[in-house]
Amino acid sequence: MAIILGENRYGKAENRVFRVTRNGDIHEVLDLNVSVQLSGDFDDTHTVGDNANILPTDTQKNTVFALSHVHGAMEPEAFGLIIARHFITSQPHITKAEVRIEKFHWDRIISQGSPHPHAFQRNGSMARTATVLICRNAESTREFVVSGLENLVVLKTTGSEFTGYLRDQYTTLAETTDRIMATQVSARWRIAATDAPTLDGMNWAKIFRESLDAMLTAFAEHHSLSLQQTLFTMGECVLSDEPVIAAIRISLPNKHHFAVDLTPFGRENRNEVFIAADRPYGLIEAVIEDGWPSW
Amino acid sequence: MAIILGENRYGKAENRVFRVTRNGDIHEVLDLNVSVQLSGDFDDTHTVGDNANILPTDTQKNTVFALSHVHGAMEPEAFGLIIARHFITSQPHITKAEVRIEKFHWDRIISQGSPHPHAFQRNGSMARTATVLICRNAESTREFVVSGLENLVVLKTTGSEFTGYLRDQYTTLAETTDRIMATQVSARWRIAATDAPTLDGMNWAKIFRESLDAMLTAFAEHHSLSLQQTLFTMGECVLSDEPVIAAIRISLPNKHHFAVDLTPFGRENRNEVFIAADRPYGLIEAVIEDGWPSW
Amino acid sequence: MAIILGENRYGKAENRVFRVTRNGDIHEVLDLNVSVQLSGDFDDTHTVGDNANILPTDTQKNTVFALSHVHGAMEPEAFGLIIARHFITSQPHITKAEVRIEKFHWDRIISQGSPHPHAFQRNGSMARTATVLICRNAESTREFVVSGLENLVVLKTTGSEFTGYLRDQYTTLAETTDRIMATQVSARWRIAATDAPTLDGMNWAKIFRESLDAMLTAFAEHHSLSLQQTLFTMGECVLSDEPVIAAIRISLPNKHHFAVDLTPFGRENRNEVFIAADRPYGLIEAVIEDGWPSW
Amino acid sequence: MAIILGENRYGKAENRVFRVTRNGDIHEVLDLNVSVQLSGDFDDTHTVGDNANILPTDTQKNTVFALSHVHGAMEPEAFGLIIARHFITSQPHITKAEVRIEKFHWDRIISQGSPHPHAFQRNGSMARTATVLICRNAESTREFVVSGLENLVVLKTTGSEFTGYLRDQYTTLAETTDRIMATQVSARWRIAATDAPTLDGMNWAKIFRESLDAMLTAFAEHHSLSLQQTLFTMGECVLSDEPVIAAIRISLPNKHHFAVDLTPFGRENRNEVFIAADRPYGLIEAVIEDGWPSW
Repeated sequence: MAIILGENRYGKAENRVFRVTRNGDIHEVLDLNVSVQLSGDFDDTHTVGDNANILPTDTQKNTVFALSHVHGAMEPEAFGLIIARHFITSQPHITKAEVRIEKFHWDRIISQGSPHPHAFQRNGSMARTATVLICRNAESTREFVVSGLENLVVLKTTGSEFTGYLRDQYTTLAETTDRIMATQVSARWRIAATDAPTLDGMNWAKIFRESLDAMLTAFAEHHSLSLQQTLFTMGECVLSDEPVIAAIRISLPNKHHFAVDLTPFGRENRNEVFIAADRPYGLIEAVIEDGWPSW
Repeated sequence: MAIILGENRYGKAENRVFRVTRNGDIHEVLDLNVSVQLSGDFDDTHTVGDNANILPTDTQKNTVFALSHVHGAMEPEAFGLIIARHFITSQPHITKAEVRIEKFHWDRIISQGSPHPHAFQRNGSMARTATVLICRNAESTREFVVSGLENLVVLKTTGSEFTGYLRDQYTTLAETTDRIMATQVSARWRIAATDAPTLDGMNWAKIFRESLDAMLTAFAEHHSLSLQQTLFTMGECVLSDEPVIAAIRISLPNKHHFAVDLTPFGRENRNEVFIAADRPYGLIEAVIEDGWPSW
Repeated sequence: MAIILGENRYGKAENRVFRVTRNGDIHEVLDLNVSVQLSGDFDDTHTVGDNANILPTDTQKNTVFALSHVHGAMEPEAFGLIIARHFITSQPHITKAEVRIEKFHWDRIISQGSPHPHAFQRNGSMARTATVLICRNAESTREFVVSGLENLVVLKTTGSEFTGYLRDQYTTLAETTDRIMATQVSARWRIAATDAPTLDGMNWAKIFRESLDAMLTAFAEHHSLSLQQTLFTMGECVLSDEPVIAAIRISLPNKHHFAVDLTPFGRENRNEVFIAADRPYGLIEAVIEDGWPSW
Repeated sequence: MAIILGENRYGKAENRVFRVTRNGDIHEVLDLNVSVQLSGDFDDTHTVGDNANILPTDTQKNTVFALSHVHGAMEPEAFGLIIARHFITSQPHITKAEVRIEKFHWDRIISQGSPHPHAFQRNGSMARTATVLICRNAESTREFVVSGLENLVVLKTTGSEFTGYLRDQYTTLAETTDRIMATQVSARWRIAATDAPTLDGMNWAKIFRESLDAMLTAFAEHHSLSLQQTLFTMGECVLSDEPVIAAIRISLPNKHHFAVDLTPFGRENRNEVFIAADRPYGLIEAVIEDGWPSW
C-alpha cells in the first residue's frame, strides 16, 4: 500500500506585533501575537523537496508586519481577515488560510490623577483571541471567524454545591452544599455568518465586551449545582445575548481549593482557610450551540 | 431557536502516578501523568444540575491510583486501555472514554561504575505519550490507540538547504544551501487495529523504540531540501517499518538558528556562530498515512 | 583541612494559602503564597542525621495554615511577622526565621452594574511581596521587613532617548531620541525600623499603594535619557514619599521593542510597528538608599 | 538626608550563543546562554542621564558573539574568563565584570548504529553553569570562578528515613523508615584560586565530570536519615575529591512523593503507588566548605 501525504499545513507562528497609533500627543497601543498557517497544494515540497509553491515563513512574517503598517490598528478579527484574505488572494494554490491572534491588554497608567497619554501598564488578567479561517474550493470561498478569550481566572467563595452524584467502589468524596468554585476560563465562540460583507460589518469590540460580561455575570449570579451547570449557563447567556454567535466552546479546569483540616489543632475550619491545589484538576469541556449543525 | 448542549466531556486531568516495582533489591520506576475524559449522557448536569450520571472526578483520580496498584507497572498504552475499559464497562451511560498518558523517563544512576538498584536520574530529553479512546454505540465498541512522543529536540549542523521557493513583494529571505536545521518533534501515530484482542497483543515498547529510531535516523541521514521534506521522510520511515501503524501526525516547529553577521567587526562567519531565536518560528504540520481513510 | 558545614537553612516553600473572610454576605478573599526558611543549630542533622532540632517542614506547613485561621486576614507583612515570631519564640535553637510571601490580587466581578459580594476575578497584573526576617543573637532580636512587587509590566511609547554612550569596536547601535521603553519591574524596599513596636504600627497597605503610585508616576512622567535614569528616579520618588523606607532595590529588564524595517517594502516606519523581542534583553539593577549603611 | 545611588550594575542577559566547530565532516556543537553584568562608575547615567560611561548592552551582545567567533569552542568557565577580562581590560571605569553562562547538552544521534557526525539530540537532563566574576580595585584584580549545575532531578525509592524529629502542637507527620527521596539539585562550587595563571590551567571539564559523579554517587549510596544529611554528604564528597574547590552551595527542594492511601478500596499500599506533589515542597539549602572563610 502506498504511503501518502495527508492533511498538512505550514506557516509562521507567534509574530509579536506591537502597533502604536499617534493621535497627536495621545498614543494608542495594540499588542498582538499573530500566527499564520496555510494549506494547499504542497505535495512537491514534502515528497521531492521542490519548493516552488512554498512562500517562506519569513515572508509571512514580513507580511504580517507590513500589513499592520498599511492598515493601522484594528480589532483582532478584522486584522485576521486582512491577513488571511491577503494569502488566499495572492496565492492561487492555497485552499485554506488560518490566522490565530492573541491580544494582550494594556491600561493607561494613572499618573497624577489622570490617564497618561503615552504610558501604559500591562493588564495581565486575560488574553482576547481571534481565529480567522478562510476556506476556498472550486465553488466558493467561506470565511469563518472564531473569537474568544483565555486565562480568565474567576472564583466564587459560596453559591456552589456538589451533591447527588454517582458513587462506585472508588468514591470517597463527601457531598458539599457550600464550596469554593474556581476556574480558568477558555472560551471560543463561532460567528454564524461566513460571508465577507456580513463579517466586515461586525462590531467585534462590542461582541467581545458583551460576551465577556455575559460570562462573568452568569458565573457570579448563578447558584451552581455542578461546574457543568455553570458552564452551560455561561454559554447560554452568551448565545442569548449575541444572535450572531452560532456556538460557543468553553473549557473549565476545576481549580480545586480544599478546606484545610484543622481539627488536629483543635480548630473548626468553617470554609475560612483553603489550600489552592495544582494537580490533578477536574476538566469540564462543552460546546453550547443554537441548534444548527455542530462545529 | 433553542439553545442546546453540544459535544461535551469531563474528567480528572494530570494525575501524577509514580509506580515502584520491587524485585527484591532491584527496583523499577514508572512515572506517568494520566488524564481521563468521559463523554456520554450528561445533559442533566448541564441543564438542571442533576448529577446522577456524574462519577466525580475525584473518584476518577482514586480509580487511576487504585488500578495502578492492582495491575502493576506496564506500558502506557496497556495502562490506558485498562483505565478506559474500566469506565466504559462500569458506566453504561458512557459512550466515550479517553485516557491520555505522558510517560517521563528515568535512568539508573551509574554509581561506582554500575547501574544502581534503586537510585535514578530523570532523563529530560523527551516524553512518551499514549492516548486510548474507546467509543461505544449500540452496534459496537471500538478501541483506538494513538502513541507518540513530545519534546524531542534535534538539530543538524549541515545537510539542510532551502532554495527555489516562491517569492512575492514581501520576500527578503536569501536562499541557502547550508543551514542549521533544528526542531522540537511532536509525533502521534495511530494503530490501525481497533479490536481488543489485536491491541492486547501489541509489543508497545518495541513499536515505540523502533518508531523513535526511524525518526531519528531519517532526521540525521536525510539531506533536506525543506523541513516539509524531512517531516515526510520521517513519517514515511515510521510507516514503512511499522505495518501496524495506519498514520502518523508530526508537528515540527522550525527552531531558527541564525548565523550572526560579524562583518561589522571584520570577521567572516562561515556558519560557525549562530543566535538561537525564540519567536517567531516556522511551524510545519502534516499527517502521513498508509492510504486508508484519514484520521 | 576539615570539611565543615557553613551557612544553612531549611523550610517549607510555596504554601498556597487562600483565606476567606465572611462579613455576612460580603466575602473578602486573600490569596497568598507563603515560604518559610529557618536557620539555627542544625549541625547534627547534616553531619550525623540526628533530627532532634528539626521541626518538620510538614509542621511548618500546618503552622502557616493554622495561624491563618487563628489571626484572620491581614496585610502580608503583618502575617509574615506573626509566622516568623512564632518560630523564633517557640524554637529556642533557631537564630533566623525568614518568611517570604507573595500576594495575588483579585477584583470583585462587576455583575449587573455592581461589585459582586462573593464572586471575584484574578487580577494578573502584578504580585505584591513581603519578606520578614527575624534575627536573634545573645544580645538582641531584630526584625527586618522588606516589601515589594513583582511582574509590574509597563511601557511608554515615547519620552525615552538613548544617546551619547560609549563606543568601541563592537558598537553598531544607532543613537535614538525617541524609542519605546518597556520593562517588567521588580522592586523591594526595606523598612528602616527593626523593632517590633514600630513595625506593628505600620500601615502596610498605604505604604504599598503610595510606593506603587510613586513608581508608576515616575515612570510615566520622567523624560528618560537612559533606563538607569528612569530607575533612579523611580527609587528616588519612593524614598522621598516614604520616610520609613531606608532603601529600595529595583531590577528592570529592558524588554526591547524594535521598530521593524519596512523599507524593503517601500514603507517608512515612523515608530508605528514594532517587534517585541524575547531574548537577549538588557538588565538594569540598582539600590537607591537614603544615606544609611547599605543593605 | 540625601538620597544616593547604592550598589548597581547593568548588562545584556541571555545571549543564546550556538557555536559550531567543523573538523572536516565531524561537527561539534556548543549551546550557551550568556549573561553579562558590569559594575563601575555609572553614577552619571543614573543621576543626570549622561551615558558617557555606558557601553550599550547591544555592544555587549555583539562582543559575546564576536568573541565566540574569535576564540572558538571552549569550556564555559574559560569562555566566561575571556568575556569578563575583555570588559575589565577595555573599560577602565569598570570595577566588576560578571559573566554567567548556562550550557545545554546535546548528544550525537545514534543512526544506523553509529554516532552521527553532524546530527544531534538535545539532552534535557541538566544544565551546567559557570559564573566568572572579576573584581578590580586600586591594589589588585581578582578572578572568581563558580561552576555548577541546575535541574539535575534524582530520586531513590528506598534508603531514606525521617525519624526522631522535633514535635510541637502543629506536628502531625508520621515517622518513616522507608520513603521515596526525590530532589532537583542546584549546586554551585567556588574555585579557591583567584589568580589568572592558576585558573587558566584548570581542567574544567574534568572538575565538572568528577563533581557530578561525586554528587550522584553520594546520593545513590548514602543511607539517608534526613535530606540535610544527604546534602552534606554530597558536598563533602565533592570537596574531598576536588582540592581546588573551596566551597559548594547546594539547594535541594524536597519533591514529595506521597504514598497513596488505598485502604478505602481494601488495598494495602506497600510503597508501591505514589502521587508526585507539586506544592508546597520542602527546601533545604546549605554551604559546605573546607574551613576557609565563608563565601
